[in-house]
Amino acid sequence: MPVSPLRLTDIVRDIESGRTTPEALLAATNERIDAGDGDLGVFTHRAPEASRAEAAAATGPLAGVPFGAKDIFDSFDMPTEHGSPIYRGNRPLADAPVVALARARGAAIIGKTATTEFASLDPTPTRNPHDRDHTPGGSSSGSAAGVAAGFLAGACGTQTGGSVIRPASFCGVAGYKPSFRLFPTVGVKTYSWSLDTVGFFAATVPDVSLLAALISGRPMADVPPADAAGLTIGLYRSAVDDLLEPDMVAAWETAARTIEAAGAKLIEIAEPASLSAARDIHAPLQNFEAAQALFHERTRHRDLMGEKILEQLDHGVTVTPQAYDDARRTARIGRKAATTLFEQADALLVPSSIGPAPRGLGSTGDAMFNKLWTLTGNPCVNVPSLRAANGLPVGLTIVTRFGRDVRALAIAAMLEARLAAG
Amino acid sequence: MPVSPLRLTDIVRDIESGRTTPEALLAATNERIDAGDGDLGVFTHRAPEASRAEAAAATGPLAGVPFGAKDIFDSFDMPTEHGSPIYRGNRPLADAPVVALARARGAAIIGKTATTEFASLDPTPTRNPHDRDHTPGGSSSGSAAGVAAGFLAGACGTQTGGSVIRPASFCGVAGYKPSFRLFPTVGVKTYSWSLDTVGFFAATVPDVSLLAALISGRPMADVPPADAAGLTIGLYRSAVDDLLEPDMVAAWETAARTIEAAGAKLIEIAEPASLSAARDIHAPLQNFEAAQALFHERTRHRDLMGEKILEQLDHGVTVTPQAYDDARRTARIGRKAATTLFEQADALLVPSSIGPAPRGLGSTGDAMFNKLWTLTGNPCVNVPSLRAANGLPVGLTIVTRFGRDVRALAIAAMLEARLAAG
Repeated sequence: MPVSPLRLTDIVRDIESGRTTPEALLAATNERIDAGDGDLGVFTHRAPEASRAEAAAATGPLAGVPFGAKDIFDSFDMPTEHGSPIYRGNRPLADAPVVALARARGAAIIGKTATTEFASLDPTPTRNPHDRDHTPGGSSSGSAAGVAAGFLAGACGTQTGGSVIRPASFCGVAGYKPSFRLFPTVGVKTYSWSLDTVGFFAATVPDVSLLAALISGRPMADVPPADAAGLTIGLYRSAVDDLLEPDMVAAWETAARTIEAAGAKLIEIAEPASLSAARDIHAPLQNFEAAQALFHERTRHRDLMGEKILEQLDHGVTVTPQAYDDARRTARIGRKAATTLFEQADALLVPSSIGPAPRGLGSTGDAMFNKLWTLTGNPCVNVPSLRAANGLPVGLTIVTRFGRDVRALAIAAMLEARLAAG
Repeated sequence: MPVSPLRLTDIVRDIESGRTTPEALLAATNERIDAGDGDLGVFTHRAPEASRAEAAAATGPLAGVPFGAKDIFDSFDMPTEHGSPIYRGNRPLADAPVVALARARGAAIIGKTATTEFASLDPTPTRNPHDRDHTPGGSSSGSAAGVAAGFLAGACGTQTGGSVIRPASFCGVAGYKPSFRLFPTVGVKTYSWSLDTVGFFAATVPDVSLLAALISGRPMADVPPADAAGLTIGLYRSAVDDLLEPDMVAAWETAARTIEAAGAKLIEIAEPASLSAARDIHAPLQNFEAAQALFHERTRHRDLMGEKILEQLDHGVTVTPQAYDDARRTARIGRKAATTLFEQADALLVPSSIGPAPRGLGSTGDAMFNKLWTLTGNPCVNVPSLRAANGLPVGLTIVTRFGRDVRALAIAAMLEARLAAG
C-alpha cells in the first residue's frame, strides 16, 4: 500500500511559514525514493547533484516541491528518452517551457518519470502503488504513480487519448487536463498536434489547482470549492457506457447522489450523434498526425519500436489527406456540439475509466471515456476519492466548457470534499 | 546578379524522362554552391558525404531536387543551430517531419539554410543575390536567397510575422505560406505556437505548388492557372498602406490592372475594425508565447542572445495572462472576419512588403503587410515577377479563404503568367 501522498498545499504553507526548508524536505523525499522506487519504476532518471543543490536553495512559491516531469518533456539536466531506446541518452539543451516555468517558480525537478513509448500504448515497467500487480495506467505512468506513492507533490504529463485522466483514476490522485493549448506543448515530443495536451497530477484537487496556478501565473488556486446549490450537473450517457464495469457504474452513481445531496440539480444528457462521430474519428486523426510526427523514427528505426505504437503508425500512413481533412471537420463540429452541452449544464460528470486499474502490466487500460474530451479540448479533472470492491481507486471526471478551467477545478473540489465528508 | 533559379518542375520532368540523373544534377549544384556561397551566406551547414550518396541514389518523385531546410528544422545528419550560439553544434536525433517527408520523396537535403536568431529579427550575414548590399529579408533568409541564387530548387521556412512572404518578395521567388497548421511544425523550434507556420520557396508559383504537393501528398500541383474571367479580386486597403513606398504602390497598381485586363473583376475592400484590431494584437500574442517558448534560453543564456529578440521576449514577460487571453479573443474574432471577406471576393491582392529589400544587412525589413494573414491563418502566395526602379524584386501576395490553398496557388499562377506575358 502507498505511503501518504505529499500534499502540495501543505508543502507550500510549511515552507512559507518556515516550519521546514526546501533542503530538509527534498532530502527526506529523495531518501524515500531511494528506498522505494526500485520496486515501483516511477523514475527513468533522477536529478544530478548540481540541480539538487539549486533546488535546495530555491526561493520561489514552489520551493521545496518535489516535481516530476514525464520523460517526453525536454530537460536540460537529465536525459529525455521518450520511453524509447532510439532516444537512449538523448540530451536536449533546454527545458520544455512547462518544466522551465516550474523550476523558475522554485520547484525541484527531482526526476523524469516513466512514459510509455512516445506516450503511446507500449507499457513501462511501472507498477501501481495501490497494488503492484496492477498497471498504474498510461501513458503518464510514472507521474501518476509517483504522486500516489508520495514521491512527488506534483507532476506533469500529457494526454492525447486518456493519458492524464486514466492513470490519475487508476492511481487515486487528482489529474487535470486543461483546455486544449492552455499550457504550451513546446519541448514535448509530439504524437498528435491536434490532441496532445499538457496536464498535471497532485494528491488532491486543491493541490493540482495550486500547482497549475503557480506554473501559469493564472488565478486558479484559492478558488473555494463550488457551492453545489444552484449548479446543474449533467450525467452524460453514451453507447460506450456498455463497456463500464460494475465498480465504475457504482462509483458514478455514488458521485451523482453525493452531488445531488449537496444541492445540485442532476440532469440526464444523451450523447448527440455529432459527439459519437467525433469520438469515432479520434483514431484516424491521431494516427495520421502520429505517422507524420514520428515519420523519421518509423522509417529509420522501426526495429527499435514497440508493437502497439507501430500498429497505430502503420494505420496512420493508410489515412489519406482527404480522410484526415474529413476527420478534422468532424472534430470541429464536435467541438461546437460540446460547447452547446454547457447551455444545459454547468458541468458533466463522467467516468474517468472503464473500471479500476486492470491486473498485469501488459496494458495501460482503455481510454474510451477520455478521448472524446481530449478531442473537443474541454477541461477535465479527475476526482480520486472512490474505491472499487478490490480496494483499488476509481475516479470520476468533471468536464466543463472550453476555457472554464477554474470552474472545472472548483466543481471537482466540491465533489472531492463531499465524498471525503462521506 | 543571380544565376538563373532552378525550376523544380523542370528537374522533376528531366529526372523522370531520364534526361539527367540525380547524381549529375546534384554534383553540378554542389559545385555551383562551392563556388558561390562564400559570398552569399545561404548555408549554415552542408550535407555530409553519406547523405549526398543517399540523395544521389534516390528514386522518389523529388529525386534530384536540391532542397534547403531552414536551420530551425531538426535534421538528423546536420547540426540544427536555430541561428543561435546557444545551439552551436546541436545534433537532433530525427528529422523534422517536413524534412523527413521531403527526403522520403527523394529530395536531397543539401544544406541547412541561414535563419535569424530563433527566426526572430536579429539578422544573418546572408546577402540578397540580386544585390549583395541588400538584405534578403528574414527570418527564412537562406532559404529565400538560396532559391534566388540557383542553389536550391525548393526550400522550407517558417512564418510567424512575415518570414516567408517578405524574403520571397525581396529575393524575387515564389513563397507559399499555407493555411495555419496544414504542414506540421513538429521538430521546428517554436517561437509562437499560435502563429508559427511552415512555408515553402521555389522559383515560380507552379514550382512551389509541385513542391507542396509532393511533400504533402495533396492535389496541389497540376492545377492549371485560374481563369481570370469570373474571378472577383479584392484590393484590400488599410491604414498601414501609408507605409508603402512608391515602388510598391506602382507594383500593386500594375498587378491590379493586369488582373483586370485578364478579365477579373476588381473591388475595393476597406479593412474592417476587427482586422485592424487583430493586427494590433499580433505583438502581445507572439511575444507572450515566445517568452514561454524560449523561457529557458532567456533565463539561462541571456548573454548569448541578440538585442532584437531580447526586446521581444522582455516585452513578452510583461504581457499578463489576462492580456494574452484578450489577444487570443481578438484573434478569434479576426479569423471570423477574415473568412467573411471571402464572401465578397475570391482572393485578395495585397503587397508582400513595404517596398523592395532595404539596403544594408542590419535589418530584415518590415512584416507589417504579412503579419495579419499569419495571425488569421489564411493561405498566402507571393507572386515574384515585378521590379522596383532600382531593379530589385517587389512581390504581391494572393490571399484566399482559410483552407483554400489550391485556389490561392492557382490564382497566383495566373497573375504570374499574365505578368510574364506582359
